[in-house]
Amino acid sequence: MVKIVVDLMGADNKPEELVKGAIKAANENKDLYLYLCGPKEILESEIKSAINGNLCIVDATEAITNYDKPVKAFKTKPNSSLVKGLTLAKENDEIDAFVSCGSTGAVLVSSVFVLGRIGKVRPALSPILGGSHDFCIVDCGANVDTRIDELLDFAKMGKAYMEAYGVENPKIALLSNGSEPGKGNDLVKEAYQALSNMDGYNFIGNVEGKNILFSEADVIVCDGFAGNIALKTIEGTAIAIVRGLIEYGKKNNCMDVIGSAVNDIMNKFDYNTKGGAVMLGVNKLVIKGHGAAVAETVYSIINQAYKLTKNELIKKIKDNLND
Amino acid sequence: MVKIVVDLMGADNKPEELVKGAIKAANENKDLYLYLCGPKEILESEIKSAINGNLCIVDATEAITNYDKPVKAFKTKPNSSLVKGLTLAKENDEIDAFVSCGSTGAVLVSSVFVLGRIGKVRPALSPILGGSHDFCIVDCGANVDTRIDELLDFAKMGKAYMEAYGVENPKIALLSNGSEPGKGNDLVKEAYQALSNMDGYNFIGNVEGKNILFSEADVIVCDGFAGNIALKTIEGTAIAIVRGLIEYGKKNNCMDVIGSAVNDIMNKFDYNTKGGAVMLGVNKLVIKGHGAAVAETVYSIINQAYKLTKNELIKKIKDNLND
Repeated sequence: MVKIVVDLMGADNKPEELVKGAIKAANENKDLYLYLCGPKEILESEIKSAINGNLCIVDATEAITNYDKPVKAFKTKPNSSLVKGLTLAKENDEIDAFVSCGSTGAVLVSSVFVLGRIGKVRPALSPILGGSHDFCIVDCGANVDTRIDELLDFAKMGKAYMEAYGVENPKIALLSNGSEPGKGNDLVKEAYQALSNMDGYNFIGNVEGKNILFSEADVIVCDGFAGNIALKTIEGTAIAIVRGLIEYGKKNNCMDVIGSAVNDIMNKFDYNTKGGAVMLGVNKLVIKGHGAAVAETVYSIINQAYKLTKNELIKKIKDNLND
Repeated sequence: MVKIVVDLMGADNKPEELVKGAIKAANENKDLYLYLCGPKEILESEIKSAINGNLCIVDATEAITNYDKPVKAFKTKPNSSLVKGLTLAKENDEIDAFVSCGSTGAVLVSSVFVLGRIGKVRPALSPILGGSHDFCIVDCGANVDTRIDELLDFAKMGKAYMEAYGVENPKIALLSNGSEPGKGNDLVKEAYQALSNMDGYNFIGNVEGKNILFSEADVIVCDGFAGNIALKTIEGTAIAIVRGLIEYGKKNNCMDVIGSAVNDIMNKFDYNTKGGAVMLGVNKLVIKGHGAAVAETVYSIINQAYKLTKNELIKKIKDNLND
């Protein structure tokens, strides 16, 4: 049985919407048990459609949102769904994972405070992206000033992540300002040498911004500042182009065709369906879904947590960090 | 009279294609004189269509390409169009600018070697992008490890650039991992404080990757590593989406509509029409056009060099750096 705490607060959409995704996951899988954190009154009527009895409610009416300062919110909102859920995950050894679509900063800070980190590693935020194939970027913003040993830890955790994701001998690359060897700032150049010499790591060299969505890499390693800029620039560019297309469609009376094409593109670039970002390096599995989550997002991150638990992600990370 | 050296070699397309853009510019403007660097034999037949007699050929049959190492190429190819053209620009005080669509690294390295830099400033590569409005990013890859004083120099040069581009009191922003004050790595946080206190600088705060194409900023300041990743990620994402659209159009037999929409998008995101990247900080105006340049690109960067010369960009940069 995989046991997962699901925080249903703090996202853009309401718990009554998000809970539908949790119920769908519970109904599809009897080997799964969910602790749903949110307002009992609201959730109670929804969970009547749960058929396996494999879930329960953890009553929490208070949310931590993007408007809260993460550290302050953690300290002043012990009864929030986020802190209550994490505390439950900490105290109950049988619980495997915690998922949330709330504030990234708050989920990161609170999960490190409550669950602790593996050894002295600096936890990293790692989303899955899809281009020609699925790949992860480590780190996407948890660490904005990164040392060389930390960057190598990101590579170790990223390798564990993609192995648990189902990729054999994952290809690892460094994000750089050019694909040639020798490109990079001092940090990247040093990491390039180190990764080239690490046994058991399938290091394939540098990837530049232009090739993020086309490279063969399964793991793209970078400091959190650069990773955050890359990830958000992909999102912003996609939005700009979609807006341009819609404008064109309206102006030229072809929104039927353009609308369908845009939907097709959105599905390809929609990270809701790829699950959320994993907080690699935290003692228990923590996944953060997109703040604009809908029911399907919650369904997706629960399945992601289920699969990564079954495939022993945390053990794999510990093994790689201790090697 | 504005005098510009035009390097017609080293780009993806041949000199006989690129020269057409130079001739168009010369024909449209009698107040312009062009030195065309390339193979005399090839260019001679083309320039018969030049009507004002305001251009000449600087014979150079050797090209420096992306396959050459910049420093080595500079040293071993003194007769290349790039080095010959820059040397002419250095030796003739009447020449105002040098433009090329060759290798970025080679143009940067050679222009610093031959023309020198303004004081001790580290030259920065600054392209113009267009979203809701035109803006520049400084630096996009000339410097991959940047100190705080260098980052502030980028802001000073970027302000001068957009003023010469025609923007009054340009809005200046820092590229960061979030738009809120307080976001950023150590470098960005320090720059945030410094820019907030600089008289005469219209500093508007941080811009995150998602908003690069939507922000109000006229100048986005960043270290060259982050800037390179942002710029190339925009390009790569646009390519990925366009490919997705074409695939959709073919599969659904609607390439007529999709094709036109893609062209419309490409025109909006086509940096060929916005001119090239300026090497800010070099003693004379140097502009690097896209390597995939066509005649229109060359026409566009010549006009850009003409306008920036008329608007005294180099003097403005010197003034700002000395303030």
